[in-house]
Amino acid sequence: MVDKRKKDLGVAVKKNENFSEWYVQVVTRAGLAEHSPVKGCMIIKPWGYAIWEKIQQYLNNKFKELGIENSYFPLLIPKSILAKEEEHVEGFVPEVAWVTKGGDKELEEPLAIRPTSETIMYATFSKWIRSHRDLPLKINQWANIVRWETKSTKLFLRTREFLWQEGHTAHATKEEAEEMVKEMLNVYEIMAKELLAIATIKGKKTESEKFAGADYTTTIEGLMPDAKALQMGTSHLLGQNFAKAYDIKFLGEDEKEHYVWQTSWGVSTRLIGALVMVHGDNYGLVLPPAVAPLQVIIVPIWFKDNKKEVLNYAKTIKKKIEKISKVKIDERDYVTPGFKFNEWELKGVPIRIEIGMREKEEKKAVVFRRDTREKETINIEELPSKIESLLKEIQENLYEKSKNYLNNHIFETNSYDELKEIILEKKGAVKAGWCGKEECEERIKDETTATPRCIPFNEKVKEKCVVCGKKAKYTVIFAKAY
Amino acid sequence: MVDKRKKDLGVAVKKNENFSEWYVQVVTRAGLAEHSPVKGCMIIKPWGYAIWEKIQQYLNNKFKELGIENSYFPLLIPKSILAKEEEHVEGFVPEVAWVTKGGDKELEEPLAIRPTSETIMYATFSKWIRSHRDLPLKINQWANIVRWETKSTKLFLRTREFLWQEGHTAHATKEEAEEMVKEMLNVYEIMAKELLAIATIKGKKTESEKFAGADYTTTIEGLMPDAKALQMGTSHLLGQNFAKAYDIKFLGEDEKEHYVWQTSWGVSTRLIGALVMVHGDNYGLVLPPAVAPLQVIIVPIWFKDNKKEVLNYAKTIKKKIEKISKVKIDERDYVTPGFKFNEWELKGVPIRIEIGMREKEEKKAVVFRRDTREKETINIEELPSKIESLLKEIQENLYEKSKNYLNNHIFETNSYDELKEIILEKKGAVKAGWCGKEECEERIKDETTATPRCIPFNEKVKEKCVVCGKKAKYTVIFAKAY
Repeated sequence: MVDKRKKDLGVAVKKNENFSEWYVQVVTRAGLAEHSPVKGCMIIKPWGYAIWEKIQQYLNNKFKELGIENSYFPLLIPKSILAKEEEHVEGFVPEVAWVTKGGDKELEEPLAIRPTSETIMYATFSKWIRSHRDLPLKINQWANIVRWETKSTKLFLRTREFLWQEGHTAHATKEEAEEMVKEMLNVYEIMAKELLAIATIKGKKTESEKFAGADYTTTIEGLMPDAKALQMGTSHLLGQNFAKAYDIKFLGEDEKEHYVWQTSWGVSTRLIGALVMVHGDNYGLVLPPAVAPLQVIIVPIWFKDNKKEVLNYAKTIKKKIEKISKVKIDERDYVTPGFKFNEWELKGVPIRIEIGMREKEEKKAVVFRRDTREKETINIEELPSKIESLLKEIQENLYEKSKNYLNNHIFETNSYDELKEIILEKKGAVKAGWCGKEECEERIKDETTATPRCIPFNEKVKEKCVVCGKKAKYTVIFAKAY
Repeated sequence: MVDKRKKDLGVAVKKNENFSEWYVQVVTRAGLAEHSPVKGCMIIKPWGYAIWEKIQQYLNNKFKELGIENSYFPLLIPKSILAKEEEHVEGFVPEVAWVTKGGDKELEEPLAIRPTSETIMYATFSKWIRSHRDLPLKINQWANIVRWETKSTKLFLRTREFLWQEGHTAHATKEEAEEMVKEMLNVYEIMAKELLAIATIKGKKTESEKFAGADYTTTIEGLMPDAKALQMGTSHLLGQNFAKAYDIKFLGEDEKEHYVWQTSWGVSTRLIGALVMVHGDNYGLVLPPAVAPLQVIIVPIWFKDNKKEVLNYAKTIKKKIEKISKVKIDERDYVTPGFKFNEWELKGVPIRIEIGMREKEEKKAVVFRRDTREKETINIEELPSKIESLLKEIQENLYEKSKNYLNNHIFETNSYDELKEIILEKKGAVKAGWCGKEECEERIKDETTATPRCIPFNEKVKEKCVVCGKKAKYTVIFAKAY
């Protein structure tokens, strides 16, 4: 009996023909996520959630090294508390979901579902912090966030509810806070590389793009195959803006009171969207080994009369490599090996091992790597070292591809016509000079929908603004964005 | 300079004199949790959250063994979906928080913040399940839950928002579903023992106490030092009630359509409240080693001229035991060793090692165990084996104490007067016969506020109902409850 699900298996459109539809199919058919009965909210399915857990584990380890402690603050924020930092509340109020009733009673004060937690946390930090000895305070939380998007939603990339981590720190000096901002952006950049195999550009946001309430925002930006940039992690210097609004002071070594210096930073489940877009192909998802919930799938190919023998051989192989990889045998007997091949390719498992009676007799195994889709026959004694090196190789290969794509799709230009052509014909992002005036930024946005994604660090300032031709103040990456 | 915080250190009331106030002081002063600016909602502080992470790790491992996969469903549930299972919606609607506005627009349909996720999950299960091959489906999620309590709230025990895990499974047969209910209750019972060192009673809830929408509810109940029972975990057989309301059917091996059989089960952050109440003493929290975020604290006692030597000795000791225990050195130089002793006792760290110049010279260490507050001097070579055995011993000792308390505070009686005396004078819980009629249950509740906590498994049915004297149908544990 052929499984009914077969018709949903595989991706029905090509990545380079209809990228948007391809994305939705990969996300849903690979079992990462799907739309829920609640408009704009998603269900993260086990395969997608397992990837999120990998990201959590990776970051929790880094947080621990940096002395950052996890905690949990309330989901609901009273309107009065949300409103204390002016710039912040203006930035977020248009997209807040409001609780107005508890049971059958109207609430006296509406409660916001957190769109981010600066306000509720800092109302408390002011009680926790008394002396310089309480500093630095470094708190993180893993939480769900609600932002009432009015634009059309897209799984992982823009949904009304998403999961994230948000870190919040308070320091005695500006220097220390700035160091923290930099440190965390580095953690994110290295995570993007080591875990997700995605190359990013590190830089500072322009005033128009910074976090509402921050002194400045730093970011890592990835470039997706449709030439749109994706903000993959941000780290903000909040300065003393919130400290003043929420009265967060400490008694310094000088025995005087000072406001603290603060930072906040976060990454969200949209990273899973980045993974799909950057590495996926016409066969589905391609997972970098470091973030893959399953790294090796063994597909035994048996006939009625040798099922037991082949399965035993599969178990022998599993034992040989289970210490160096996350490995599973697909023992299902109601789908064909071909069906299994397609399904695990769709789900992006980095390595497949195919074995049948012939491989058993020859003490070999066929090893298939998902990224290049190449097959190789390996002697069983060489299998552990082969798998180990292949996992590394796939991770590196995916990262190199991502890095090359990024490098090859940022075009430097001084010509505004060329900028428009690059953006509008989806060739890539543009690196160009900018005078720093809003009207030039606005013109690019109006005429191309591209925005300044960041001012890359350690970049020489160009001579002229690409729009007005006057002296440039910054070199900026312009691109359309998710 | 003496730290200002000193005045908040330690517990100012005795556990057996003012249990309720003692509880609040331990929870807040040990840094587990505190009230937030949002009425009825708590902030889980790093020490409390680290305990929750231990519980998560423990259960995630068990879930994996049982083939249960983590996922994430939306926080918000449309009113129409919530309302489909009649008994369920009646049980939960009085305590639902409603979102009625997104940004500045009224929503067309109010959205409930999940009070539990049966409804939103099962609306989706009906799409995921087609054939018997999709069964069993075993899904878990770690999530925040909101129930708009009107009773006064208590940190961890009753708050408007709390954290939990909720597991939801669908099976082809009733037998299999019942097996799952039993299996998960066992997991919870063993977790209470192995991790939390708390003895519980396993049993079935009466009709009046079961989960709204379930065929029946099973529970593990702990008995707190004030003789109130605490429901520490529940596992429900949902039967086909939700399957029928949400149309969850599968094509069986018989090629016919059938409704699935379902279960759900969960534990919440209230387990941390149980930990505090059961093990805590007049010095604060007492953590069982298995759930302690930190198991050993080393307090070096130095004078100005030997600080470096003592600290080096502390580091030697740390190295000796860091493979067998979670250990840290308290190196703070602005508080006294005595302050540190009190603080770590308050926080419940199972073992403290005190060392000074004398211990260094004699190659010894003073080992203090938190549960009995006994001190012993140990040779440094014996330290690793001592710490290892002590961690085990403390865990077992705490469990034995909890078991003895439970056994000694459940009183069997056939006399209603005696039942009233036991309950009203807070001597403990009562094990008695019950005819099964609501009026007898109601009378106990009216006259003592005790309720049937559970019908213990494997218990001989008593002859007579403790209230009406007629033939008993069940043997029931009656107690006041959190």
